[in-house]
Amino acid sequence: MAQEYPQFEEMESLFQPGSVAVVGASPNINTPHGKAFKSIQENGYQGKIYAVNPNYKDINGIECYATLLDIPGPVDMAVIGVAADRTMPILRECAEKGVKSVVILTSGFSEAHAQGKNVEAEMASLAKKSGMRILGPNCVGLINNFNGLWATFAASQPDVSVEFPHAFDLISQSGFFGVAIYQMIMEHGIGFARYASIGNQADLTFSDVLNYLVHDKKTKIIGGYIEGLKDGQKFLQVARCALEREKIVLAMKVGRTEAGARAALSHTGSLAGSDRLYDALFRQTGVIRIDDIEQLVAFLLLAVPGRRPKGRRVAVVSVSGGGAVILTDKCAHFGLEIAKLEAKTREAMDSVLPSFASSANPIDVTSQAITEPEILSRCLEAAALDPNVDTVILSFHMQYMMSKGIIRDILNVYKKVDKPFLFVGRLFGPAQEVACLENEIFKAGIPIIKDVNHAIWALSSLVNWDERVREYKHSFCFPRTGTQRQPLKLPYESKILTEHKAMDVLKHYDIPCVPGEITVTVGEAILAAERVGYPVALKIQSPDILHKSDVGGLRLNIANEQELRVSFADLTEQISRNQPNSLIEGVLLQKMAPKGQEIIIGMKRDPNLGPVVMFGLGGVFTEVLEDVSFKIAPLTRYDAEEMLKEINGKKILEGYRGGAAVDKKAIVKALLRISEMAMANEKILEADINPFIVYDRGQGGVAADSIIILAD
Amino acid sequence: MAQEYPQFEEMESLFQPGSVAVVGASPNINTPHGKAFKSIQENGYQGKIYAVNPNYKDINGIECYATLLDIPGPVDMAVIGVAADRTMPILRECAEKGVKSVVILTSGFSEAHAQGKNVEAEMASLAKKSGMRILGPNCVGLINNFNGLWATFAASQPDVSVEFPHAFDLISQSGFFGVAIYQMIMEHGIGFARYASIGNQADLTFSDVLNYLVHDKKTKIIGGYIEGLKDGQKFLQVARCALEREKIVLAMKVGRTEAGARAALSHTGSLAGSDRLYDALFRQTGVIRIDDIEQLVAFLLLAVPGRRPKGRRVAVVSVSGGGAVILTDKCAHFGLEIAKLEAKTREAMDSVLPSFASSANPIDVTSQAITEPEILSRCLEAAALDPNVDTVILSFHMQYMMSKGIIRDILNVYKKVDKPFLFVGRLFGPAQEVACLENEIFKAGIPIIKDVNHAIWALSSLVNWDERVREYKHSFCFPRTGTQRQPLKLPYESKILTEHKAMDVLKHYDIPCVPGEITVTVGEAILAAERVGYPVALKIQSPDILHKSDVGGLRLNIANEQELRVSFADLTEQISRNQPNSLIEGVLLQKMAPKGQEIIIGMKRDPNLGPVVMFGLGGVFTEVLEDVSFKIAPLTRYDAEEMLKEINGKKILEGYRGGAAVDKKAIVKALLRISEMAMANEKILEADINPFIVYDRGQGGVAADSIIILAD
Repeated sequence: MAQEYPQFEEMESLFQPGSVAVVGASPNINTPHGKAFKSIQENGYQGKIYAVNPNYKDINGIECYATLLDIPGPVDMAVIGVAADRTMPILRECAEKGVKSVVILTSGFSEAHAQGKNVEAEMASLAKKSGMRILGPNCVGLINNFNGLWATFAASQPDVSVEFPHAFDLISQSGFFGVAIYQMIMEHGIGFARYASIGNQADLTFSDVLNYLVHDKKTKIIGGYIEGLKDGQKFLQVARCALEREKIVLAMKVGRTEAGARAALSHTGSLAGSDRLYDALFRQTGVIRIDDIEQLVAFLLLAVPGRRPKGRRVAVVSVSGGGAVILTDKCAHFGLEIAKLEAKTREAMDSVLPSFASSANPIDVTSQAITEPEILSRCLEAAALDPNVDTVILSFHMQYMMSKGIIRDILNVYKKVDKPFLFVGRLFGPAQEVACLENEIFKAGIPIIKDVNHAIWALSSLVNWDERVREYKHSFCFPRTGTQRQPLKLPYESKILTEHKAMDVLKHYDIPCVPGEITVTVGEAILAAERVGYPVALKIQSPDILHKSDVGGLRLNIANEQELRVSFADLTEQISRNQPNSLIEGVLLQKMAPKGQEIIIGMKRDPNLGPVVMFGLGGVFTEVLEDVSFKIAPLTRYDAEEMLKEINGKKILEGYRGGAAVDKKAIVKALLRISEMAMANEKILEADINPFIVYDRGQGGVAADSIIILAD
Repeated sequence: MAQEYPQFEEMESLFQPGSVAVVGASPNINTPHGKAFKSIQENGYQGKIYAVNPNYKDINGIECYATLLDIPGPVDMAVIGVAADRTMPILRECAEKGVKSVVILTSGFSEAHAQGKNVEAEMASLAKKSGMRILGPNCVGLINNFNGLWATFAASQPDVSVEFPHAFDLISQSGFFGVAIYQMIMEHGIGFARYASIGNQADLTFSDVLNYLVHDKKTKIIGGYIEGLKDGQKFLQVARCALEREKIVLAMKVGRTEAGARAALSHTGSLAGSDRLYDALFRQTGVIRIDDIEQLVAFLLLAVPGRRPKGRRVAVVSVSGGGAVILTDKCAHFGLEIAKLEAKTREAMDSVLPSFASSANPIDVTSQAITEPEILSRCLEAAALDPNVDTVILSFHMQYMMSKGIIRDILNVYKKVDKPFLFVGRLFGPAQEVACLENEIFKAGIPIIKDVNHAIWALSSLVNWDERVREYKHSFCFPRTGTQRQPLKLPYESKILTEHKAMDVLKHYDIPCVPGEITVTVGEAILAAERVGYPVALKIQSPDILHKSDVGGLRLNIANEQELRVSFADLTEQISRNQPNSLIEGVLLQKMAPKGQEIIIGMKRDPNLGPVVMFGLGGVFTEVLEDVSFKIAPLTRYDAEEMLKEINGKKILEGYRGGAAVDKKAIVKALLRISEMAMANEKILEADINPFIVYDRGQGGVAADSIIILAD
């Protein structure tokens, strides 16, 4: 399952081409290619620009060629906006010309009809053969603000000045999403670095572009809009790499609901897949999942200008009690800690606060701060100087006229201290003046976010991400993929491996199984029982019998030879009567496992994301409550440990009704080994250990029943 | 538990006084009372205004009296802003003068120190004695825009024109919250009717003001900010009344988290109480719970200008595929239905849409709509005419320059049809022009909400509320309070009613119990066993023994007289050995109840909200997962039925692993009767039926163990 990645140079030909040709260039800026051609000319791109269109001699003063092949010099990158049915011939011309990369703006492929899928497969195979990389089709193009390359028809440079340029890169399956974000953050003074619209991902995928950005030193924060990943395994590797290199990745994955997934399919032909699996993928790679554009904007407002908090302890300072309560609730809700202030800090605050105000964090300076602004600035300063505080959050809702002076004071305090501040609130007054004052706050390095929910979510996400990076770097995190072990031969003819065969596979991966032997005669069974020890169980082994007990194929708690004789005879008699046509492999004689906590461990291969490992408590937890945890393989130890914490019924593992805690390490081991097995054997589609019986701490666990399903 | 409510006239004296006196009036507008005095003068109030302050002869041209008693005419309402320690004497003067209602702006009472609580109790008792009603203390006053009465120091009339005046009333425990909302919705063109800041609720509570507004015909939508209710039972009644009268109530209850609850305590001295109980209270009364100001603003933007949707079926029309997917996801997430369009509708759309666009709902008109605006308007019209569509949602993100003409078309379509539209998105361009265009959309009656999450939440909340009102009106919903039944005498001396006593109480309320008799000798037990029938159980009855089985006080599955003799002797011997000092009431001989689904039914009295009824599945569901449902008594049948739907493990009730569905009616009946018992007996602090065994549909259920705890 080794992944192939585009070379850095291939991606550079897309983002940093020396020359660009627009095929289908036109002076009509109401067409996508016409608009894109104009954009490439007008945004400062310094490379060579060519127009290709047999109908014109020249467009906007640029010489126009009848075909690509007529262009005298080399062409690094081509932008194609011709009709869908003319796209393949043009692409072949590109390959012939030696074009290094292509952006296809044209729509009408897999998102529109089944035939489009075939055309995209042709594109992919041309890309592979020629080495020419393709972005799109059905995309709005790309933007690189480092070199002024605006190969897109969707956006225009907003007429605003930007305080923090090149702060953010975006990869999007939706043109709209990209453009909306672009506009919104520029209006807030934050500049883009690059934007790639990936459309239907015929060749270059989301993960490919992400990989390029993760490996570029200039990249800081990357956002993504995803309708469906085609290569979850690649994404997993790249996103882990992003953690390693400390690049923040935020992703909006849509198609969460069935209705949304259907809509995504008709938009970029993406199969959304199970949303829970994407959740798992993002959690295990530290990707910050977002649900709407506003969250992304809030995160950028927080992370781009500000100082970086060292931890999750906050001081809340508010000009109103209500604001203090709301903020405190939100901080606690999102897992931030309300810092315990030092006595010295509280003394400094109490010396200026009115008697009815509170210096216990949250600090309510009350409306007295309007008449005596130094109350607020003194409290802010004291909070920032407290060693127990990582971030100072200010809740502030005030009339513009009253707040002008106060805000100047706040900025002065901010300059004197070294802690991050976060300004949550609104100024009320004339729009233009308010915007100016807000910009002053932001320019100084204080994030200003109006929506309290978004503000605190953003701070908490940033702090969580920082922690995740630290954990990642401190843990041994290279996941096993099975290459260290003897490869497993799967010589079985049947698609379904019954328990005794499945256990052979599990044992190969050192997953402990209940001792047992396959037997055919009662004599064999008796000998086997003597070897494993009574009490024993009998289980019919047949790929045609999935529910053994329904057909009399399961006998438990057999105490001695006498009982064994009776049970064996009875079982074989019932099976031959009930299942005359089933393929019978024999009867598994198994030692009865001692009682312990039953859990379920499973694995299933997702067509887009690869092998998924599942853990749950079984019984009502799994069947009624769907209380299970998923992770995408290969698992790191950290991932496996997280799975045990992610189920709602986790208390059970700690010992329930006075029982002892279970051997969590044994579960973690089994999960890691199932992951290893899945990575090493693409032929295994599904594996289920149900139950895996786990014993008290230090006592291990055993697989007590299992089944494996192979690919045809 | 009958509630006392302020009379409508008493409340009118607060909101519609013929004359107002400001005690502590001052020309210094940097003081609360100075600012309030100016506000009363400047906002159009036509009643008589008096100033009281011995230090001035006149303030702003209004004659100033040394004391209240010097005022010649009657005073309907007084506003007090003097220091905390001077408040009580002034209040007594008010009562002497015959003032009908008072607003106390002053802070420094229960929110600041324990002594403040006593002062507030004094205020309450003065109010009761004199009939004078008090708002506050520690509040920012009140506003009534019907008569221009601005008795507040916190807000100023924003300099904006309002399209929809008197649309909203607000009751708030936080001055800040009120003012922030005030400003934000006015800036959006929505006008306030009344605003009451209730502060520490020494006399008038949140529920009192709510009751007044619910009964005023002019009221449309009421918002509330709550730190803690003092009278949950009153709130329950008033909020049910609001449903009856179709007044929408939205409430933000803070102190959700422990940290937030502590902050609320130091703000208005409110005990937040369990957040889950408030959730229950709001759900059962159709109160829309909000978590931040932005949600409230979004709801008003939706509900105030627009047409009212008839149901939850939406058509999503988008100028981008990404926008369509995101909106669709949100609609499904919030429980709206993506309407199935009629063939006729799709034909009308397909006739104008480009081939690669989709007419399946969501309808992605693609960026083609920029060059051919009629595509969008034709699709909108077709969607609005489809009988399967209740609301047309438009996802729209566009440059201002491109969108001007398109928006005019949209407004024309809107005028032609009769369905509600919802505009979700943003226009990008110069701030002032954008604001103007947005206002045009809003003025026409189309809600325009930028944040997709808030927009769809608001639509869904409105639709849910409409459904709730319909359900409420169609169901018999007068809850039983026990008055129809013989009152129960609770002659018991002990605080703890052991099972046999608890069952007497339950039986009084027609809750079926397992047959059993209290016995002292083995002879009595044998006779009792013959009456109830074997198999039987023995249970020691002692208020001192809570865990019977731990001390050998519980014997189950006794099959016959012989076993009974042995068990009885053994039990009494063990008890007298293990519990020599416990008060023993006897041994309960009980028929063994047949197996069934065990559930838990409980009741507990909350100091602020009154009796709370609890339902859960017991076992791991209750102990590990806390999977229980709460409702505040008195329950309606609707409430009780909802409880069964609110637990995560509800599948169990439908029959699990092939079992039959349980008798839900028997559970509902038991819940209603526990509610009735709780309402009729204030002395009962707590009751637990654990387990209540419920049988297959139609087979009823029985209480198999129970305990009741009485107040001292």
